[in-house]
Parts: sequence; structure tokens; C-alpha cells
Amino acid sequence: MLLTPKVREILSWYESDNPGTKANLARILMQGKLGGTGRMVILPVDQGFEHGPARSFAPNPAAYDPRYHFELAIEAGLNAYAAPLGMIEAGAATYAGCIPTILKVNSSNSLATSKDQAVTATVGDALRLGCAAIGFTIYPGSEEQFGMMEELREIAEEAKAAGLAVVVWSYPRGPMLDKAGETALDICAYAAHVAALLGAHIIKVKPPTGVISLAAAKPTYDKSPVEDDAARRIAHIVQACFGGRRLVVFSGGEAKGAEALLAEARAIHEGGGNGSIVGRNAFQRSKPDALQLLADMIAVYQGQAPAVTKAAA
Amino acid sequence: MLLTPKVREILSWYESDNPGTKANLARILMQGKLGGTGRMVILPVDQGFEHGPARSFAPNPAAYDPRYHFELAIEAGLNAYAAPLGMIEAGAATYAGCIPTILKVNSSNSLATSKDQAVTATVGDALRLGCAAIGFTIYPGSEEQFGMMEELREIAEEAKAAGLAVVVWSYPRGPMLDKAGETALDICAYAAHVAALLGAHIIKVKPPTGVISLAAAKPTYDKSPVEDDAARRIAHIVQACFGGRRLVVFSGGEAKGAEALLAEARAIHEGGGNGSIVGRNAFQRSKPDALQLLADMIAVYQGQAPAVTKAAA
Amino acid sequence: MLLTPKVREILSWYESDNPGTKANLARILMQGKLGGTGRMVILPVDQGFEHGPARSFAPNPAAYDPRYHFELAIEAGLNAYAAPLGMIEAGAATYAGCIPTILKVNSSNSLATSKDQAVTATVGDALRLGCAAIGFTIYPGSEEQFGMMEELREIAEEAKAAGLAVVVWSYPRGPMLDKAGETALDICAYAAHVAALLGAHIIKVKPPTGVISLAAAKPTYDKSPVEDDAARRIAHIVQACFGGRRLVVFSGGEAKGAEALLAEARAIHEGGGNGSIVGRNAFQRSKPDALQLLADMIAVYQGQAPAVTKAAA
Amino acid sequence: MLLTPKVREILSWYESDNPGTKANLARILMQGKLGGTGRMVILPVDQGFEHGPARSFAPNPAAYDPRYHFELAIEAGLNAYAAPLGMIEAGAATYAGCIPTILKVNSSNSLATSKDQAVTATVGDALRLGCAAIGFTIYPGSEEQFGMMEELREIAEEAKAAGLAVVVWSYPRGPMLDKAGETALDICAYAAHVAALLGAHIIKVKPPTGVISLAAAKPTYDKSPVEDDAARRIAHIVQACFGGRRLVVFSGGEAKGAEALLAEARAIHEGGGNGSIVGRNAFQRSKPDALQLLADMIAVYQGQAPAVTKAAA
Amino acid sequence: MLLTPKVREILSWYESDNPGTKANLARILMQGKLGGTGRMVILPVDQGFEHGPARSFAPNPAAYDPRYHFELAIEAGLNAYAAPLGMIEAGAATYAGCIPTILKVNSSNSLATSKDQAVTATVGDALRLGCAAIGFTIYPGSEEQFGMMEELREIAEEAKAAGLAVVVWSYPRGPMLDKAGETALDICAYAAHVAALLGAHIIKVKPPTGVISLAAAKPTYDKSPVEDDAARRIAHIVQACFGGRRLVVFSGGEAKGAEALLAEARAIHEGGGNGSIVGRNAFQRSKPDALQLLADMIAVYQGQAPAVTKAAA
Repeated sequence: MLLTPKVREILSWYESDNPGTKANLARILMQGKLGGTGRMVILPVDQGFEHGPARSFAPNPAAYDPRYHFELAIEAGLNAYAAPLGMIEAGAATYAGCIPTILKVNSSNSLATSKDQAVTATVGDALRLGCAAIGFTIYPGSEEQFGMMEELREIAEEAKAAGLAVVVWSYPRGPMLDKAGETALDICAYAAHVAALLGAHIIKVKPPTGVISLAAAKPTYDKSPVEDDAARRIAHIVQACFGGRRLVVFSGGEAKGAEALLAEARAIHEGGGNGSIVGRNAFQRSKPDALQLLADMIAVYQGQAPAVTKAAA
Repeated sequence: MLLTPKVREILSWYESDNPGTKANLARILMQGKLGGTGRMVILPVDQGFEHGPARSFAPNPAAYDPRYHFELAIEAGLNAYAAPLGMIEAGAATYAGCIPTILKVNSSNSLATSKDQAVTATVGDALRLGCAAIGFTIYPGSEEQFGMMEELREIAEEAKAAGLAVVVWSYPRGPMLDKAGETALDICAYAAHVAALLGAHIIKVKPPTGVISLAAAKPTYDKSPVEDDAARRIAHIVQACFGGRRLVVFSGGEAKGAEALLAEARAIHEGGGNGSIVGRNAFQRSKPDALQLLADMIAVYQGQAPAVTKAAA
Repeated sequence: MLLTPKVREILSWYESDNPGTKANLARILMQGKLGGTGRMVILPVDQGFEHGPARSFAPNPAAYDPRYHFELAIEAGLNAYAAPLGMIEAGAATYAGCIPTILKVNSSNSLATSKDQAVTATVGDALRLGCAAIGFTIYPGSEEQFGMMEELREIAEEAKAAGLAVVVWSYPRGPMLDKAGETALDICAYAAHVAALLGAHIIKVKPPTGVISLAAAKPTYDKSPVEDDAARRIAHIVQACFGGRRLVVFSGGEAKGAEALLAEARAIHEGGGNGSIVGRNAFQRSKPDALQLLADMIAVYQGQAPAVTKAAA
Repeated sequence: MLLTPKVREILSWYESDNPGTKANLARILMQGKLGGTGRMVILPVDQGFEHGPARSFAPNPAAYDPRYHFELAIEAGLNAYAAPLGMIEAGAATYAGCIPTILKVNSSNSLATSKDQAVTATVGDALRLGCAAIGFTIYPGSEEQFGMMEELREIAEEAKAAGLAVVVWSYPRGPMLDKAGETALDICAYAAHVAALLGAHIIKVKPPTGVISLAAAKPTYDKSPVEDDAARRIAHIVQACFGGRRLVVFSGGEAKGAEALLAEARAIHEGGGNGSIVGRNAFQRSKPDALQLLADMIAVYQGQAPAVTKAAA
Repeated sequence: MLLTPKVREILSWYESDNPGTKANLARILMQGKLGGTGRMVILPVDQGFEHGPARSFAPNPAAYDPRYHFELAIEAGLNAYAAPLGMIEAGAATYAGCIPTILKVNSSNSLATSKDQAVTATVGDALRLGCAAIGFTIYPGSEEQFGMMEELREIAEEAKAAGLAVVVWSYPRGPMLDKAGETALDICAYAAHVAALLGAHIIKVKPPTGVISLAAAKPTYDKSPVEDDAARRIAHIVQACFGGRRLVVFSGGEAKGAEALLAEARAIHEGGGNGSIVGRNAFQRSKPDALQLLADMIAVYQGQAPAVTKAAA
């Protein structure tokens, strides 16, 4: 299998990485229906940890079974499946070689009082489970942010030496940020940039709103405004990821309608983002609905934008 | 000895584990009067650590002697015996090969001011003492929860590589939880799910009440209600353990009447739970009473539900 | 990508391996034109080490360039490419993600006076270079055989823990074996079995002749003769590999005519062997000839046996 | 290449350092247009981490691309380029051997609530990326200062053993310092001296004002006043760096006009400082403007002080 | 400093190496009078270890002083200086940053009875001494060859991770080789190829004669003869180094006349070798003679071939 020129170009951005890491990035980028395009749709299932099982899976009880998510990701032709240790252990042998997996190695939960996460898996786990990457969340702005970055530093260095890729979930929160600030344009761009500076290969952030949160940043955005348009905002995030030389994907966030998700995907596609990482919006739908939605999203990233999406219809 | 189809099915859930861990799970599941049924009754004696010796053993002074508990578990035909280091060391040679043991590797005590535990034994201890598993407590919601999870991660990885099983006591507590919250349905389900995500082979939680504690979870339970019935609540916890693909046992909690315990066991049995882990309610009774109670509980899990239990009579 | 039933069946044989190793075996088995069939054609290029560069590459000087072999294996649609450290380092980044690689971690040379090999690469190398497996040669019968087996034991344990597959070249030689003995039926079966016993996932041996070499083995073969037919001899080797529950591939050996190689492949196919590992016979031909030969061999393993092969014509 | 007498003299100050560290200092001091003069101009690009991407790069969007900064530093003939992990990883292979790099191993951001930084890279990273030095920020006066100094101690010891140089950004802040205090003469001198005492090879501070901040220091400065002149203040800082036996460079600080920067450089030059470390003022200008400014600064350090600078014209 | 296109091309061959190793290769290739040409002249002074001090240095007693060799290499404008630990330690600080050094980490001596070497320095030594590379000798064909290769494997992996380059002296000897065999064409090519396979970045061999030593290799060379010409033989060695994709330099060997050395250099130049590594022939001459000889050799590699060389005149 030869890589596409697009994937070769993307790999060239990661010039300091060893061939093992490049091979795992290639594995993710060449997988599924978007294989070779440089775009990705990834299924993350860490909601059970973050929000509890019922809030995550009651809307579609089949999703309580970890095998469901492997199958959903494979059937939908996605690029990768990301989950915490137990979820990966529960299917890694059955689905060995079927889809690249990303081991989420830290996790928080709804009972936590600090804006921090526990490190819950290791590089050794990722290797024995055949994962292509580790996933790690940082909360830029949190009072625990420096500790989290230091944990990432340690585990990322080990992962890279072992030929794994590193995916960083960068979710701003903390005393300087109100709710609107967490998805503000300047803050999302900042969070994405910080992940890139920490050595992430793939960066996951939320799609930004047009809000500018940091007072110190306002003059800059007044002078160099970002057009009030979702695709232009995505393009700004892409720019913040080393001028587009790091892969960046956007989370779907809270459950929402198919049309809203597809509109988001169109903006990501148009703005040059590398794709969507969509959890709740996929696994909380019935499987046929989820497959239809994911197919529609993939069509967007393939440059096919049906007038009226089937899922939304 | 061939495994029963039920036990083979259960082992198939643990597809990422090595044969050593599978063999230790099989050893527990094939032991005693419930051997082969997929149900278990386990005797845990960590009360001395948690509550002090007199509160634990004065009601039945024979229980001050660690050998007592090995013998009780063996005579009663239980599946396993769990205890801290000293208790296991005090009988592991005499009862070598008689019953699977679970080395409780962390412990708290009544003098503690933080909601945390000390790691008090190692995987090396478990191996030299011939244990089948390690046991580890986490307190989801505690201010120390992330540290506890990180300790578990480290010791569980080592235990699994050495072919041991990992039993996780998941007891929610902390600033977001009042007393009722600690046994609330949503919180128990969450605690069980977190243990599964952390890679537990056997999960131990308390039987849930019908309370919903987390405001954020209420809409979910309003929309997907769990019937107000002990067995339905157990079934919800089972579902939260990877759709029933992880072993989950329920602690008896505070000393109570035999009938209450048996009612609990009947709910666990009916709801698809894998059994009971019953400490104080066993060893604080006289040995004949305890044996009768345990026999009655076993009968419940064997599907025999006498009109009036002998112990309760 | 779902695995084929055949590949799922093969993976089920490796029930003590972790999902990482299974994924790497799956990667090899699902790759190329024979992907999914359970048959493999692998390109090994360790001849330069074993016989020197001119004897290896002068017949086709393009093969001096390490990139040539990656490209040959990829263009021919093979399952994997195996080579020593330097050869892999020289192309692992350019061809990252294009074909599974097997890092040959020990090597001998024509100047050696002992029947031994040097360990020339590590599991760390295999991980940083993104390899799917390590390859290791043993010489059963050599005065150094026990040392070699002990080296294999150490590196194989480390490789398996890291989720890599282990390929063992098992080439009998030593004081008890004359030239004919090295490819004798009993000796080849013995060598294959020893590799299986040492924990190899994929076993590489030479196709056996009908000779029985070991006096002690003759009565057995007299009593339970193997029919004098290449395919029956292959079937005997397959049987020696745990009754067919380990992958076994056969080396092409010295340069020979295409028809001889295809006849060998037909015997391997018919006898139930898992394929060919063909070095000199591939890379010493011109690229068009090599591609034709490999296509013809693949056709044999696909069950297509042209009356007159194109390469032989 | 022979070192100049000036550089040999400078290296002689570092008499307890191993030849590896000396070689890396020499590499920095012999590089670029100021090579051999004992003066340096260094490009630091940690603004993206400290202030966010837009505030850093929107004024000159080409600077979003990490390659831009390598090229700017090389084309301008600077002595070194300093940046956090991700920025170095993104160009270290392309520009290998072209310019000494300083890996900034700790970083803060504008969302932080404590005056601290996260350690975000390691000595191992610096070695694999071919860096000549590590860079580390301390905040003397901060409530976290001792922790920061202890982190520096640990990483500096490791860096020196591996032959790397250690550059310390010493930026006073904390409860005892108001805004004016942070750049007060006594405080800058103090910060520079602390860095020297911590074993820094190159010290980076801000150019001091004439303010004396610490009440306890006032009598001393009353008695031994420093003339109210920028060059005399620089000379005082140089004196605080072991009587001029440690390299000290001055940051340009906030974006300002070319003439202001050149005036600063002239004071540094005249006061015996070793040069400028100029980030925002370089990369936020267009490349031609930045090259002109840097050329003018270099001319100052070469002792050429044009009547009217071209950049300022 | 920008790399020349030639050096960029050479670095591209080492695609699996980290930027640190690439930077050190660049440092060697960009140094001295041949900087940027892809050709090198290197001064190795391990003769004292190999032959004893008097045999090495009595012809030019100034050479007893380790500083002499640093100065010779620097004044002559060579690419690098290679020596054992003590020799490097004796000048590494004085000449820090003046010339890339190669720490010879194993050594033999004239009193040895086995064809082996002692490992006499470490990667840690190379880092603290600021070396660009380690040098390691293997004796392919020796009874100790496998042990030597295993030592190389271990130290090379560590060196590469730390960003150092690896230079391998590959000198065939042993029971299968008579004196003529040690420099035979087939054997030199084999030795060079083995070094490449072991992961060497720079390979050092002796210039080959036209002898073919290995009986097994004769048919190959009969069929694909190498023209009886020094430059064609060099070209064959270059080909054996991955088709010219590894740097290969040739040792001058025993003391000989300048004209013989220059003739050798002309053949190396014409045959596409990357240069000369010339010890005794440099440091056993008086300094003026040595400088003249080295200048003449450099002129050859610069493509300037005076009718009558000055040194030979």
C-alpha cells in the first residue's frame, strides 16, 4: 500500500519523529473511508468516565457493551477509535488489526472537585493492546494545568520513543475563564497552540465561537480580525497549529441535531481542519442513525455536500 | 477439571488478559459451592484495618485469630477470601491450596482525616503468598481520587503482567456526595463503571438505593427510569459494568439481620449480579450462625429460595 | 477493515498473546495480494549479511539500494519485508505505513567459524522503526544452539510484552548433521517443532527432502512413513508445528529456476504450508522478472495454478 | 576553526564545566555575524506559549509556521534560536546543523493563575533534537520560586553532565514586587546574580530602569550609586553576573520602535552586556524589516553605530 | 549557515535518525576545507593504543602531546579528529568548538592474543567531552566478531538516542582470512556492507586490492567482474554501502609515500568514496610535511589534481 501524496506531505511535518510514530500516524490517516485524504473522523468513547454510564449510554443501551463502539467505528469506516483502558481491553483482541486505537491515558469524572485528571493507563498498556497512539487531556488555564502538562511531557516522551503517536485533547478551563471563555476564539486558538508546543501530533479542540475572552488579546483581534464565519474561525485554529503543519480535529461537543453537526463539519472542511472527533453524537444515536450521520459527515470531508443530508432529513 | 460453559463465557470477556490472569479468575469462579455457576460469595476481612479490632472482632472473639477466617471461608464453601497483608501471612501456608486468596493491597483506618488509603502490600507479596488476586479500594469523588487511581494503575499493570486478577472496591465519597449520595443509584453505577474503565476484573460496590444524586444525571434517569425495585437497580449496575461483561459483586455493608441480607442476595441474583462479598455479617456471627447464613446465601445464588430461610428462622 | 474468518481462526491459535501481538500478526496476514487468505509471501533481505553484498546483489545491481527491496515488496503485493537493522533504517521513514516490516535481530556472515549469530538489533529498534515483528535465527544442532535459544528467549519475551510478533528462522546444522541432514525430513520437522516450542509465532524452515537423518528417528518413520511427495513432506512439517496451529513458511533457498520455485510453492500450498519467504530468488532477478515470479507464486497460493507459468515460460 | 581570543577568554570563565558544555557555548558564540566577538543576538520564540498565537503571530502571519523562525535566525546571522519543544521538533531535522538551538524546557501561559511554569521538555529531548542548550525560566520573588529553582537545579545538573549549556531567563515577580519593581535596578541585578548562583551559563534579564525597589537595598545604592544612564545600569547588571564572568543578554520586551531597540542595544554594548535576545520585536515585523533591524542591532554590537539606523529611518 | 545541497542530500539518507544525529553528521560534513562537498579527510590517532607510543610517535616526537593532533587537524582544515578517551580528554576543553571529535570507544593493543577489542569509553564520555560521534571497530571474521557486533549494537543504540553519529571501523581478520584476504576486494566490500547493516552512519574500511578471497564469492566476481583499477574497486565498495547511500571513508594504512597516498585519494575521489581517514601518514611526518600532504589530499577531493603534487615533489 502506497501512501497518498497528501498523507506523505502530512508525515513530512513530523520530521523529528521516528519511523514508528510516522507509521502509526500513517495507519490512522490511511484507514477507513477518508483514508488518504488527510481528513479524519474519529470515535472517542470516554464519556462514561467523564459523565457516568447512564448519561452516556442510556439513550442507546447497546452502547453499554464496549464491543459496540469498536463495531460502530469499523462499520462507519472511521479512522480511529479512542477510549480509556477498560474499554480498549474489552475488545482489543477481538478487533485486533481492524482499526487503529488511541488509548486515552488520563481521565476525569463528574465527581471531581479539581480541574485535573488521573493518569489511568501507560505506554506499556498501549503497546500490549496494539494501540497506534495515546490520548491525553490538558486543561490550559486550570490550577492544575502545569502538573497535567508535566505528566503529558513524561508520557509523551516515552510514547514517542516507542513509536506511538500522541493525541492531545486541549480543553481550556479554570479561574480566568467563564463558560463563554472556554470556547472563545482566542482561547481555542491558544489551547491548540499550547498542545502543538507540547509536541502533540494530533490536536483536539472544540470548535470556537466568535467570542474573544482574554482582555489582553482583544487589541490583536481588533487589528487582525477573524471574519465572523465558522469556517474562518476554524481556519484561525488551523493557523494556530503551526500554520497548518499539525493535524487538528474538532470535537462535536454536546448532543445536537444532525444538521448542526454537518454544518460544523462543513465549516471544518472549508476552514482546512483535519476532521471531527465525534462521541456522544454518534453512540447516543441508534446504530442506523449513527451510521447515517457518520456517512454524511464523511461525505462532507470527501467534498460531497448533499443539499439536504439524509441524517438530518 | 473442565470449566463450565458459564465460566468459559465469563473468561472470554477478559480477552486482553494473559492466561495467568484467566487461570486465577477461573480458580475463583470454580471454587466452593458456587463453583462453575458464575456467581460468587467472597469473605473479606479488612474490617480490622478499617474499624479497629474490637469493633470488628469483639462480637465473636474467635475471629481475632486470622486462621478463623480461612476456616470459615473454606468450611462455608466460599469462592475466595480477601484480607490485608498480615491476615494473609498468618494463614497462607497452613491453608495453601485450600481457597483462592485476594490480597487487599491498600487500606484506610478510622483515625484517617483524608479520604484516602495507604498502599500496604505489593504484587510481590501477592505472588509469594500464592494469592489469586489483588484487591484495591478507590474512592471516586474524594479529593484524593486521582492519586488513588494512579496508584491502582501502577499496581494493576504489574499484577496483570504477573498473571494476577484485580479486584476493585469502588466506594464513592467526597465533597460532592452526602451520605445518601454514596449509595445513590447513579453514583453506584458510576463508581462501578469507573472501576471497569480502570481495568478491574472484579468490581465491588454497595447495593444502590433508588436515590439519584447528581443533578446532571437526573434528566437521564427521568427519561430512562430504573424501576423502583432492588433487582432492577442491581441490573442497572450490572449494565454499567460493560453491559454485563465484567464481574460485579456487592458488599453486605453494615451488620444487619439475616433476612435483610438474603433479600439483598435475592435481588443481586435476580438482577444478574455475580454475588456477595460479605464480611462483618459473616465473621461477627458465631461460626454456626455464620455457616448457616452463608449456606442460605449460597442457596439463593444456586436458585433455591426457601420460603423461610433457616438462618432467619 | 474486518478480518477474514481464516485470519480470525489463525489469530485464535495465539491465545496467550496480547492484542498488540495479535494486531501485528493480523497486519501481516491482511497485507498485500494474499491478504486475508492465511497464506503469505514474504521478502527477506538478509543475504547481504549472510553471503556478502556482491554475491547477493551483483546479479541485479539495483538491489544494492535498500529502497529497492521496500519497493519490490510493496509493488509485488507481498505480506511483509524482513531485513537487518541498517536495511530497515534506510527506508523505514520513506515507506512508513506501506508494508509490515520484520526486523532481523541476529545475523551471521560467511567469515564466521562458529555456527552462531550476533544479536545486531533490539526490541527498542523494532519499536522506533515501526516494525511488526522481530526475526531471529536459531541453528538447532549447532554447538552454539543453546546460547542462541537463550538469546531468543530473552528478546522474544521482551518483544511479546511490547506487542510485537516473533518470527524464527530455524536452520539445523552442527556436528551431528551432514549436508543432507540439514534438509532431512525428520530434521526439518524437528527444527520447526523446536521453533514452535520456543514460542515462535511464525516459523521459517527449508522445504524438506525425503531423507531421514537421525538414526533414532528411522524406526518411527519406518512405522509411520511420510509419502514420498513434496506436498506430503510439507504437510508433515505443518503437522510438526502444533498440528497446523502455528504459521509456517518455507524459504526458497538457493537461486533456482522459476518453475522449480513454483513447483515448491504448489507443494507448500497443497501441503497446507502458509507460504514462501523468498529472497535471492526475488531480488536477484530483474524487477520485471521478480514481479512476474512473485505474481505467479501468489497465484499459486490463491489457488490459481496456470498450466504454464508466465515467469517460467 | 580556531576560537577567537575573546571566546577563549569567555570559555575560561566556565572552568568547572566539561568540554561538551564548553563546545556548545563555543558553538553559540562562534555562530553568525557576531561569531567570535563575545556578543550575541538570539531569537527566542516562546511568545506563542506565553501570550497565545494570535498576540504573537497575527502581526506577521508568516510567523505561524515554525520554519519561519529558523529561517529568520539563520538569514539574519544570529547566534542561536530558542523555542519550546513543538517549535523545535517542527524544524530540527530540516535545519539540523544550521544554527544552535536552545530548547526552552519550561513554559507558562496567559491563563495561569500562579507565577510558575510547567516543565515541558527534557534533557533527552534536547539531545535527540541536537540542541546546544536548554533554557529555563525562574521567577525570583514568586511564591513558587523555590520550586522553580529546584526544578532548574535538577534539569541543569543533568544537562551539564550531557554537555549542554544552560540558559536562565530570570524574571522577578511576586508579592514583594510591584510593576516598577520587576525591572528595578536592584531587582534586575539581584535576579541576574541569582541565576549566576544557580549555575547558569547564559543569563537573560530585562534591561533595568533606575528604580530601586527593595527598601533594604536603598542605603547601599545611596552610598554606591549607579549613574542614571542606561549603559551604566547595564554595567551594573554585568557586574552582578560575577564581575562580568558570566554571559548576560537582555530581552527586548514589548514591541517597540526600532530606534528604541537600537538605543537599548547601544547601552548594552557600551555597558559590556553580551547582547540581545529579541523575539516579538523581530518576528512581529515583516521579514525584510526584521532582517534590517537585526542587521542594525548586529552593527551596534560590532561597534558600528550608524548616525541614523536604516531600520529606524 | 545553510547546508549545501550535497550535504542535505547525504542527510536525507539517514531518514530514521533523529535531528541530533543529523546535526552531528552535518557538523562533520560542513567542517574544514572540504566542508559542504560531501567529502571528508579525518585524522584518527588510535595508533598509540594499537601499536604503542614509540612505534606511533617516535618518528615525530611532537606527536606524543595530545594537543598536537587537535592542532594538526584544525590547521589542516580537516573534518574531524578521532581518538581514544585519554587523547580526547587531554584537549577537549582547549579545543572545544574547534573541530568535531569522534570518541573511539573500543581499542586493542599489540599485546593482545585475541582478535578483539576492549570497550574503553561510553556514550556518557562522548557527551561530556562534546564529541560529534563515537567510533567503534569490528573485526568481521574474527572468532570474537559476534561479541564485538553485540557490543556495537548496544552502544550504537544509546549513541543514536543521544543524537550522536556512529562511525564503524570494519577491519576483516580471522581464521578464514590470510593477509591478502584482509584487503581483498570481496572482503572489503563485505566488511563495509556489514557495517552498514549494523547501522553505521560513517563506514571506515581499507582500500581494497583486486584479490578475491572467498572461494564462494569467486563465481560472482567472474560473472560480474570489477575492473582492475583502484577507482573501480572503490566504486564497488561504495556500491556495497547501500548503493552509495552511506558515507564511506578509507584508511591510509601503513606509512607510505605521499604520492602513493595521493594516488589512493584520487582513486577514492574518482570512485565516489567520501574521503580519507589518515593517521600515521599524517602525524608521523613533520608538521609542515603533514600539512602539505593533507592540503594536497584535500585538493584532490576538491577536484584539483595538480600534475605533480607539492608534497610528493
